[in-house]
Amino acid sequence: MQPYLPPVADYHFLLVEVLGFDAAMAEIGKAEIDTDLAVSILEEAGKFCAQTLHPINRSGDEEGCHLVNGEVKTPAGFGDAYREFAQGGWTSLSADPEYGGQGLPFILQLWLDEMLSASNLSFGLVPGLSRGAAEAIAAHASEELKATYLPKLVSGEWTGAMALTESSAGTDLALLKTKATPNTDGSYAVTGQKIFISTGDHDFGGNVIHLVLARLPDAPEGVKGISLFLVPKFLVNDDGSLGARNGMSVGSLEEKMGIHAQPTCVMNYDDAIGWLVGEPNRGLAAMFTMMNAERLMVGIQGLGIAGAAYGQAVGYAKERLQGRSADGTRNPVPIIEHADVRRMLLNIRSFVEAGRALAGWTALQMERAHHHPDAEERAKADALVALLTPVVKAGFTDFGFESAVQAQQVFGGHGYIREWGMEQYVRDARIAQIYEGTNGVQAMDLVGRKFGLAGGAVVESLFALIAADLAEAAKSESAALIAERTAEALALLKQTTANLKGADVDSLGAAAVDTLRLFALTSYGWMWTRMAAASGGDSPLHAAKRDMARYFALRVLPQAHGLARQIEAGPDPVMAIDADAF
Amino acid sequence: MQPYLPPVADYHFLLVEVLGFDAAMAEIGKAEIDTDLAVSILEEAGKFCAQTLHPINRSGDEEGCHLVNGEVKTPAGFGDAYREFAQGGWTSLSADPEYGGQGLPFILQLWLDEMLSASNLSFGLVPGLSRGAAEAIAAHASEELKATYLPKLVSGEWTGAMALTESSAGTDLALLKTKATPNTDGSYAVTGQKIFISTGDHDFGGNVIHLVLARLPDAPEGVKGISLFLVPKFLVNDDGSLGARNGMSVGSLEEKMGIHAQPTCVMNYDDAIGWLVGEPNRGLAAMFTMMNAERLMVGIQGLGIAGAAYGQAVGYAKERLQGRSADGTRNPVPIIEHADVRRMLLNIRSFVEAGRALAGWTALQMERAHHHPDAEERAKADALVALLTPVVKAGFTDFGFESAVQAQQVFGGHGYIREWGMEQYVRDARIAQIYEGTNGVQAMDLVGRKFGLAGGAVVESLFALIAADLAEAAKSESAALIAERTAEALALLKQTTANLKGADVDSLGAAAVDTLRLFALTSYGWMWTRMAAASGGDSPLHAAKRDMARYFALRVLPQAHGLARQIEAGPDPVMAIDADAF
Repeated sequence: MQPYLPPVADYHFLLVEVLGFDAAMAEIGKAEIDTDLAVSILEEAGKFCAQTLHPINRSGDEEGCHLVNGEVKTPAGFGDAYREFAQGGWTSLSADPEYGGQGLPFILQLWLDEMLSASNLSFGLVPGLSRGAAEAIAAHASEELKATYLPKLVSGEWTGAMALTESSAGTDLALLKTKATPNTDGSYAVTGQKIFISTGDHDFGGNVIHLVLARLPDAPEGVKGISLFLVPKFLVNDDGSLGARNGMSVGSLEEKMGIHAQPTCVMNYDDAIGWLVGEPNRGLAAMFTMMNAERLMVGIQGLGIAGAAYGQAVGYAKERLQGRSADGTRNPVPIIEHADVRRMLLNIRSFVEAGRALAGWTALQMERAHHHPDAEERAKADALVALLTPVVKAGFTDFGFESAVQAQQVFGGHGYIREWGMEQYVRDARIAQIYEGTNGVQAMDLVGRKFGLAGGAVVESLFALIAADLAEAAKSESAALIAERTAEALALLKQTTANLKGADVDSLGAAAVDTLRLFALTSYGWMWTRMAAASGGDSPLHAAKRDMARYFALRVLPQAHGLARQIEAGPDPVMAIDADAF
Repeated sequence: MQPYLPPVADYHFLLVEVLGFDAAMAEIGKAEIDTDLAVSILEEAGKFCAQTLHPINRSGDEEGCHLVNGEVKTPAGFGDAYREFAQGGWTSLSADPEYGGQGLPFILQLWLDEMLSASNLSFGLVPGLSRGAAEAIAAHASEELKATYLPKLVSGEWTGAMALTESSAGTDLALLKTKATPNTDGSYAVTGQKIFISTGDHDFGGNVIHLVLARLPDAPEGVKGISLFLVPKFLVNDDGSLGARNGMSVGSLEEKMGIHAQPTCVMNYDDAIGWLVGEPNRGLAAMFTMMNAERLMVGIQGLGIAGAAYGQAVGYAKERLQGRSADGTRNPVPIIEHADVRRMLLNIRSFVEAGRALAGWTALQMERAHHHPDAEERAKADALVALLTPVVKAGFTDFGFESAVQAQQVFGGHGYIREWGMEQYVRDARIAQIYEGTNGVQAMDLVGRKFGLAGGAVVESLFALIAADLAEAAKSESAALIAERTAEALALLKQTTANLKGADVDSLGAAAVDTLRLFALTSYGWMWTRMAAASGGDSPLHAAKRDMARYFALRVLPQAHGLARQIEAGPDPVMAIDADAF
């Protein structure tokens, strides 16, 4: 395989020329975190990903994880890489300084996640879920739990896991059956089985802190009877050292399509000792505050794999000689000369670079949501992030999977052979469309909940923002075309959004996935417009950005017209057929 | 997993109500092969697939093939299944009676192939490639070679393999390096390495007959210097018994993304004894006469897996309980009630049933091409088959893969777990987009060669045929909508075809894949129109066909509008970017 090339030059372009990073940091009183610092951190992160994680990506897939006498054994190199990652401070990058975090902006975290996902998705899930667990604890747990668990989760000495799903309770968590019974000392005895638990256990050393959804004895039925518990693999002594093994064990490792180096566990809890996090029966709400960040991270996984697969496919297309040049004079030629190979590569790149920009824009909104001095600005930014979260999760991962498939296609028959590594990207990318809420669930969240935020004012404010950017960019020669075509897509999206206002569940369900895709394409068009508007210069990077914006406008964005017609058809063609006729 | 349900009722509907099978057979003088006979054969074939092949599909994927002391070991049950298949006469179904074949029409062969691919793609490749080898031998080899090899290939006692690809010669066979040197006895010594050789060897007993592309010592460079050789694993004694082992061996088994039960070999030929098939230096032409049939078969593989995945997903969606009914009164409900789950299932079904119909229509044209008493009718039919071949190969396999992915999505997290079998469909379906000429190569064949057949008259004749069917169907209430929408797509396709007339290589290459998809969607619309027009009755099957045609018209076919705009953009956005800027 080709080396992994971290996209640091693109990050730099986005920070300086598109996203106004320094001004954004200054606005929230963090002027000391400037572009130079950000780029140097991204460079270091990129080196770690390229030099340590990318080389064990395929070997990890081949070796996989094993359960030996009830203990998880991860593939060669993963334990060392994890300890190096933690010691390098990467687990604490964006964490709260109160618990040892570096408090660096979330945009660096998301782009670190992109490079982690690009170089080793199975690995990247480990710190990703630790962060999710830490955020839930920070937001909802008692001071005592925070003091005991957060510093070591932040330092990476311990890892975290989220235990939600049960075999009969996936999308619908109301059906979960795991029980928690109060002990006399204020702790609880947790009993039940959870499935699909990423990094439920490992052999990296330290503790594994599970956040488990379970029902109290007197809990009401449904989602209003679910509580959240912190359940550690090892009980923790008063001095912080590891004590007795808790009553929990790995039932088996899930045999999956991909992410084979990720120890995804079936977990059995047998009177495992746990502590309530947050209010009784309010577990789902506690989980959701954290889940939005996780969903952004999963979106980034699609982006990361797409970027990695693009790099491999470009390398191959430049080296592989097959067929004649278009003018018939040279033979054989690198396949990157063939129009259809270019088409596949350009599709991928148009997704990757727009996604990267949109991830950055969203991350800066998250920063505003947390740190802007003005409460109203914080609330506005928070609402925009909430709106965009399902778009990032589902849009990025759908495009990510399509990108991995197209990159594999560039390799022809070799793409199907494991040795070349491309089929792993396809298998790994596939999970991101499924977990953390399937992409269908994301689409329902978008049209059923997020469109209705503040009575529709949030989505309208984003549309106004996009329209203003398009109007401004339309004046520049480099962005006029993409601005015009994105405005067309935006008009279709606005009409769709208006039509769905107050629609019933079936209407929303029938429109959801196509609407989310239309939203994602429009958002990408917006980002391409901003990038093209910033690319009026003579540099090769500016020239490439202009060409890419034009490609996206003319060869990708037209999908919007088909989608809008499909959505217009309404729910009747979907619902008319009787269930028995399937 | 759910049992495999052969689609015999749908075959019956197509034969009687859509394709006019009995009249078609009568027209070519085969009235004795009527619907009753055809359906009884399809029923028997379906039983074999459901009872023998489907049960070893997942176990075969798990176990895979192994190379033990240079000998291929296939998974448990495959050898027995193969022998039962051959003894049941299934290898000889459509083969020439002169060599022991049953001479049954190709439509039965294609639909048998659909059920083979649905129940066990790895297995289905074995007889599929034997048939390809037999066809090439029948069309081009000497009488002596035919007499020696064809009866046992037809009976299934021996199998066949096609050895084209080398590591540096895939799409571009001009680059192949395998050599053939004349021996003094009229045979040749073949030396070289071939990769990706499906069923290059196995442990089913009998002989393995390789058709190998190689260069004679005095051969010109490029594709005009390639010859075709018959190279058997065992030399054959004069009495037809197996003699000495030939100088060929399995270098290794390809480690692939899927079709793990298929022994895909790297083959080494070391002065292996072979015989020339056809003229020296005309090997590529000999190979291509056979390759069209293979391409149709590969298209059918996409169709088969899509149908199988649909069956599994429907079964799951009826049993899996998650979430509330749309009216909020019932909880939990089978997920088939949810609009987005229905949307995925209906997408798949709209592809499967239209593909099945188009496969049948194409197969009847093949029958006309071979057996119609009028030479002009034979030529017309042959040209239509040539035109549709890349559409079937690439269209069916693209839709097939998309269908497998959507069916997997219906399963949520379980779709990613091997035990549930859905991820195998995705991995297996993926190969069909790649081998036998990648789908990009198919698209170039369509726009670069097939559109130009008879100066464009062939594609125009198909468009006229479609237009006439649409005009007729538009008069019936059950088909008016789908006829109208398909006519819109046809207009877009006609415009595209006209624009591409005389276009240069880059223009063709940039438009190829989108044009093929537009062509496939239009063809599916045509088939849905024909099915809807035949479905004016009260039966549940007719009602479902009408509903499906409406679904396809309103929720799938609109893609055509996006595609047409993308194609219109021309090659410039694709070619403008410098290769160094990738």
